[in-house]
Amino acid sequence: MLFQAPKIIELHNPVLLQQLQYKLDNKTKPLGSLGQIEALALRIGLILGTESPHLSDPQLLVFAGDHGLVAQGVSAYPSDVTWQMVENFLSGGAAVSVLARQHSIGLTVVDCGVRHDFEPRSGLMIRKVGYGTADSMQGLAMTDTQRDQALCNGSELLMSLPGNVLLLGEMGIGNTSAAALLMSRLLKLDIAACAGSGTGLNATGVTRKIEILRAVLSKHPDANDPLSALSAFGGFEIATMVGAILQAAADQRVIVVDGFIASAAVLVAISLSPAVAGYCVYAHLSGERGHALMLNNMQAEPLLDLGLRLGEGSGAAIAWPLLVSACALLSEMASFESAGVSRHEKTFNNIKA
Amino acid sequence: MLFQAPKIIELHNPVLLQQLQYKLDNKTKPLGSLGQIEALALRIGLILGTESPHLSDPQLLVFAGDHGLVAQGVSAYPSDVTWQMVENFLSGGAAVSVLARQHSIGLTVVDCGVRHDFEPRSGLMIRKVGYGTADSMQGLAMTDTQRDQALCNGSELLMSLPGNVLLLGEMGIGNTSAAALLMSRLLKLDIAACAGSGTGLNATGVTRKIEILRAVLSKHPDANDPLSALSAFGGFEIATMVGAILQAAADQRVIVVDGFIASAAVLVAISLSPAVAGYCVYAHLSGERGHALMLNNMQAEPLLDLGLRLGEGSGAAIAWPLLVSACALLSEMASFESAGVSRHEKTFNNIKA
Repeated sequence: MLFQAPKIIELHNPVLLQQLQYKLDNKTKPLGSLGQIEALALRIGLILGTESPHLSDPQLLVFAGDHGLVAQGVSAYPSDVTWQMVENFLSGGAAVSVLARQHSIGLTVVDCGVRHDFEPRSGLMIRKVGYGTADSMQGLAMTDTQRDQALCNGSELLMSLPGNVLLLGEMGIGNTSAAALLMSRLLKLDIAACAGSGTGLNATGVTRKIEILRAVLSKHPDANDPLSALSAFGGFEIATMVGAILQAAADQRVIVVDGFIASAAVLVAISLSPAVAGYCVYAHLSGERGHALMLNNMQAEPLLDLGLRLGEGSGAAIAWPLLVSACALLSEMASFESAGVSRHEKTFNNIKA
Repeated sequence: MLFQAPKIIELHNPVLLQQLQYKLDNKTKPLGSLGQIEALALRIGLILGTESPHLSDPQLLVFAGDHGLVAQGVSAYPSDVTWQMVENFLSGGAAVSVLARQHSIGLTVVDCGVRHDFEPRSGLMIRKVGYGTADSMQGLAMTDTQRDQALCNGSELLMSLPGNVLLLGEMGIGNTSAAALLMSRLLKLDIAACAGSGTGLNATGVTRKIEILRAVLSKHPDANDPLSALSAFGGFEIATMVGAILQAAADQRVIVVDGFIASAAVLVAISLSPAVAGYCVYAHLSGERGHALMLNNMQAEPLLDLGLRLGEGSGAAIAWPLLVSACALLSEMASFESAGVSRHEKTFNNIKA
């Protein structure tokens, strides 16, 4: 199955932008005093193509997969934690389960390639490309056929999803390594600036991880374009997420980006289709080393900076009410005229008088 | 009416702190990976005195008052905007009205001393000490009797409030000036580091405001203790808020601090009773110049940094769902044992093996 990236409309609508800005500037508040919440309202309005955007039926997908590279010792946790955590998501006990419940966000786990067979059940989509990727130290993490299968899976499952918002989440022991490899290769940055402690390596562990990842990079000198890099470094959950991101942008949904791994998937998607960038809202700056530099390179301004480094989509879910606030303020706040509140301009006259 | 500060219990409970930390550390997530949300959960647990804190019936009070100093030209808006905005809060069109509705936070406006007579109605408490403070350039902003009346009002109205959370909000044209004066005097900082653009002064306006405030400070050389400083600089809404903060801490409620003015009231309260500090959660770092320095001096770590500079309690309301998340995660997340997820320790054994 060959993957064909969907057509994504470049978000360029100066008329609507001006209308949104005018609406914000006439709300009963000093100009710009809602800071980043105003920028967020503009962004959501542009994506949904309306002055009165309404976020409906938000869907958080946790893309899960295992990584052959874990055999080299790049993670503080064993691969089994991936499937155990999937069970935890499904039984409602994980952080993202709690947060999705709090905010009435639909939560679906996608088995993109976990090294485990799950009982089919509600809340789980099985789109398994393999039982974990191959070890990228030994060869490609996945074949090009597997990669295209994962991309198609992501695109297809997105099309079946209700609502107009996609929140990105992931689970995969070893996936900070895959994300760091993609970042290093696509942004041409030294791996030492990209790789961090993941689930909790100590300084020695991080140093060792960087050495391993440097060796992996040297095994794949030609994997320079985004698709080749995906094949080389994986993982199945990242490739599936890339497919979903591309389709979400094509469908003009708001994409709420979580932390380091989700941002790496967005980086791949933007490298394939730059227009994706306009559809993304960055939930938070992760505590994972490399995320700040990645966001900086993507000119992305995150909403929160809480030192979160859990993944799962937990940061996206924590930031979610801010998006709801932005839309509510745009729709429900009174204007100076409607509320009969004196304007700034008048005041300057008063002061001069 | 003489104000007597209520007795506030110093939050020092190492046993509970250890229990809370143990509970967090056994949740299915890497240690510390929920960053500031974990610190928030600990704080709320300590305040409410339980391992399973539950936030009930949150109440946001918007303390409103006018300032005689506005006659000197310290604000970009006229005093009339104070009562006009109170009407806007009550009719549901202000930012804080929208946000309180979004999060089901009880919203009450307290007329602490607005230069206007309001029709009594639901959602409004009239606790007027005067029709705006006097001009602090000419003399005391309020008499000691007025100050004690305001403090008592704050304390009393707090006692009538349901729930276990107080979110702080305020409205008062000119109150960034009063807050900057209190900050400068109580923290012994130059006024130029404390005063900012408020509702939107330009650079020339800010320079002029600083000159005015410097002159005000020189008129009150002996107003060095917190109560004298309150009398000298005002305002009625800040003094009433201080009374409410002290009582909220005495009642062991969670106090959600908004921006620059609310933080200045907390600074006064902490100067009177240092134990207040333990009951405060700082919602956000305001865009108002001076707030970062003030929080730094108070060793306060804000949750959000979104460039908000609106006041009203808007930042407290935007941060509110993070407090709910912290409690939900503490109560509802599974432990490693209950979820059957492998632990960190095991892994290190695996890696060594």
